[in-house]
Amino acid sequence: MLDAMARRAAASLPIHLDLQSGDDLHEQIYRDLRRAIIARILRPHTRIASTRAMAADLCVSRTTTQLALDKLQAEGYLITRRGSGTFVAPELPDPPLVVAGPPPTSALPAPSLSRRGAQIVAGRQIARRVAGPARAFRLGVPALEQFPSTLWARLASRCVAAMTPRDLDYGRGGGNPALRAAIAEHTRSSRGTRSDPAQIYITGGAQRGLELLGRMLLDPGDRAAVEDPGYPGVWTALTCASAQIVPIPVDGEGLSVAALERERGVRLVCVTPSHQFPTGVRMSLPRRRALLAWAARVGGWIVEDDYDCEFRFGAQPIPCLQGLDADGRVIYVGTFSKSIFPALRLGFVIAPPALHAQLIAAQRTMTDPEPPHLDQAVLAEFIASGQFARHLRRMRGIYGERLTVLDDSVARVLGGRLAMRPTRTGLHAVADLIGVDAAQVAAESARRGLEVMPLAAYALRDGAADNALVLGFGAVPPDRLRRGVEDLAEAIEAVERSRDPAPTARRIA
Amino acid sequence: MLDAMARRAAASLPIHLDLQSGDDLHEQIYRDLRRAIIARILRPHTRIASTRAMAADLCVSRTTTQLALDKLQAEGYLITRRGSGTFVAPELPDPPLVVAGPPPTSALPAPSLSRRGAQIVAGRQIARRVAGPARAFRLGVPALEQFPSTLWARLASRCVAAMTPRDLDYGRGGGNPALRAAIAEHTRSSRGTRSDPAQIYITGGAQRGLELLGRMLLDPGDRAAVEDPGYPGVWTALTCASAQIVPIPVDGEGLSVAALERERGVRLVCVTPSHQFPTGVRMSLPRRRALLAWAARVGGWIVEDDYDCEFRFGAQPIPCLQGLDADGRVIYVGTFSKSIFPALRLGFVIAPPALHAQLIAAQRTMTDPEPPHLDQAVLAEFIASGQFARHLRRMRGIYGERLTVLDDSVARVLGGRLAMRPTRTGLHAVADLIGVDAAQVAAESARRGLEVMPLAAYALRDGAADNALVLGFGAVPPDRLRRGVEDLAEAIEAVERSRDPAPTARRIA
Repeated sequence: MLDAMARRAAASLPIHLDLQSGDDLHEQIYRDLRRAIIARILRPHTRIASTRAMAADLCVSRTTTQLALDKLQAEGYLITRRGSGTFVAPELPDPPLVVAGPPPTSALPAPSLSRRGAQIVAGRQIARRVAGPARAFRLGVPALEQFPSTLWARLASRCVAAMTPRDLDYGRGGGNPALRAAIAEHTRSSRGTRSDPAQIYITGGAQRGLELLGRMLLDPGDRAAVEDPGYPGVWTALTCASAQIVPIPVDGEGLSVAALERERGVRLVCVTPSHQFPTGVRMSLPRRRALLAWAARVGGWIVEDDYDCEFRFGAQPIPCLQGLDADGRVIYVGTFSKSIFPALRLGFVIAPPALHAQLIAAQRTMTDPEPPHLDQAVLAEFIASGQFARHLRRMRGIYGERLTVLDDSVARVLGGRLAMRPTRTGLHAVADLIGVDAAQVAAESARRGLEVMPLAAYALRDGAADNALVLGFGAVPPDRLRRGVEDLAEAIEAVERSRDPAPTARRIA
Repeated sequence: MLDAMARRAAASLPIHLDLQSGDDLHEQIYRDLRRAIIARILRPHTRIASTRAMAADLCVSRTTTQLALDKLQAEGYLITRRGSGTFVAPELPDPPLVVAGPPPTSALPAPSLSRRGAQIVAGRQIARRVAGPARAFRLGVPALEQFPSTLWARLASRCVAAMTPRDLDYGRGGGNPALRAAIAEHTRSSRGTRSDPAQIYITGGAQRGLELLGRMLLDPGDRAAVEDPGYPGVWTALTCASAQIVPIPVDGEGLSVAALERERGVRLVCVTPSHQFPTGVRMSLPRRRALLAWAARVGGWIVEDDYDCEFRFGAQPIPCLQGLDADGRVIYVGTFSKSIFPALRLGFVIAPPALHAQLIAAQRTMTDPEPPHLDQAVLAEFIASGQFARHLRRMRGIYGERLTVLDDSVARVLGGRLAMRPTRTGLHAVADLIGVDAAQVAAESARRGLEVMPLAAYALRDGAADNALVLGFGAVPPDRLRRGVEDLAEAIEAVERSRDPAPTARRIA
């Protein structure tokens, strides 16, 4: 009877061995059980079958099951009670990567979020922002005051007047056909994608695309690799999917594929190869090839987030990863938040054809309904009319000028204390601080009304980021950039001064 | 060896028996296998373990596994090759209502979705739709040809011309303040909500709201109760959250709270009390009180989906659940897809204040960024100017007239064979079929170009739905409704005729 019970428990354990995967069997058992424990499919205090029963049930050796259970026990997911067996631990270990949440903002009892919900709330913000127009060195937004609003308004009025009852209805899947065609053509010529309109799936911004891919490609507890330091929005999307985030270091050539290869069971990796966020590194061609080879070898997915690739300053273009991908493993995520404006909330995914078909099928069940038709129609018109290309050319000039102002001001005012890394793409720069702590400088700068982030704000592991600042220049007009550099110099001096006095005085500062 | 192989195959089958669920075990096995086959977790030609091996593996009787496999074979998911065993069919049947996945569009290997992704793809569609203008009896859309597009275009042009650079930026959280104020006031007076603008959170449609609540309030594997029959969009949202869906029967007073109370560990329940989808039942006041008492007792959440509540025909309004809720357990989800137009993609959540603060905090980490500002601004103007109220009044008249046409036509053409249930709210009606099978009638109607759904299409458990049809009338002009009823009568006659001949003839029909 006892044996029958144990076998039943094992048979109903959510373990699916894949003999072809190349992963060790004990690793697969470990992963499936861990996932089920985190997902509460196996709840605290649940009895786990003996290693012998489990081995018999799965047709593997007892050493294999023992290895898996040992690891889970070492990590705190299982406990053994002498003489009575192995059980799911009453208290699960805290997953790493969770940052403390903001203080409660209401006198009511805190609502009972799920653990996932609490993790999302506790996630990191992309940038420190002050209300009002962009201060130096606001991150993540384009020069909104330079946007051709009048032209846009004219297009929008024309599109809204042309609406038919069909345009008021739910979409027919995948997005406005004219917009899909315009994006396919634009990304082919400007980004080197291999794309056909039939592969384009319109999303309500890049973040929606990342979330959608998370839920379609990952199960709770699945391992997803990210760049460290990296983009917190990706971590949020993966947390929404209840995936396990695996941080991978970034070096001068981009994400370390060698480090990625040392991780087992990674199903998906998110990268920003054109302009790594936040370090600004452009992934080298050999590294791109190595990453593609990794994906082919392990059967993994690569999500390429090309968030601000439209803006290059004198650098040779490298075709995007998606364009190098021969076997449909790369999913390209694009956005118009930087190249047009964030409130438009439109982005797109370029998916391998078979995956694209699945995304469309999923859309029919109401997951991720199409973004508003009117916005799509206006954007399609903006691109097709050539206005988008003209806008990009003009903005490249403006951003190039702002970058020069930033570089020159720093050289003049902060030479020797702040070393700008060369910036060849995008809307932000990275600058190494010499002899002062970046977090302290960022805090002191915030007190002076600047919007400055330390590089370490985007790191998941201690030591993953250098002692540097992230300086947005795209959203900030030249005069404000010049003044910002002077204010930043004062902030650095204040931090330097605060180090000299006695420790008590330092605490007051 | 052969026996070991068979056992292993069974152990790796994606079957998870839930002994507490009350569902028959053979039904659970049938359902899990069917889902795995549709999702291509079990691919065509895959060998399935023998009923004996599977029974041993799952510790169930062989009759149980036999029943499950028989049903799958009858439906065409499995085939038996004499002497060599049972296999997944090379060609899957077209399941009614389940998206079978469009044909592969590429020579590449099928993409590897997660199990969750495959579940989403295999989810049910809300409605059967034919391309082009709404046929009788299209479901889930308003009368789009009646929308005051010119007026809307004028408002939109004005709003787009008034855009400032700040309107181009990411939102500041929660949505356009003017829109939030307008919604709070409108829902207070028309729906009896207790709401303050500070509790309103604008979403990109109701589905986004449901998804957001799923991820914020549920962890993977958490139990969430839904109405059965019910709204497939809710099931999709809960599948996105990897929640476990617990179907609860619906009777003449709405969701059975007695049945809900028999379920253990339910953390959240989704209901449509104003107009139960699809049965049309309005939840009685005692039932509403019982549901609120349940939530208070178990510390659960109630999600109230008020999807088409604006349209009442002579019925006394009952205040919405949220208005009866004294202790912040009800979250109200509203949409403008029915009252304005679906492509607008705007909806809202009215959350208890503490939860609202958490939603705003979550939004700062980029989960669920705000919907496009322009659309929000136009809608705010449409409501504040009084045009929305005027539009609703006018549409109530139009929908009331269409309902009368439908009722009268059915009485005239189909009296005695189709019994209309009284419809007091919303844009669809339910009609009981007498002596013919609703699924057959729906299939026959589809062949004649009608858009008709059987009530059972919205059921999760066998027998949860009566033998009835769901007939949308809101989107269909009166003459098309009249013709549709005549076509429906022909379809019913065709089904009746097909029952009389010999069994072989029936198979051909």
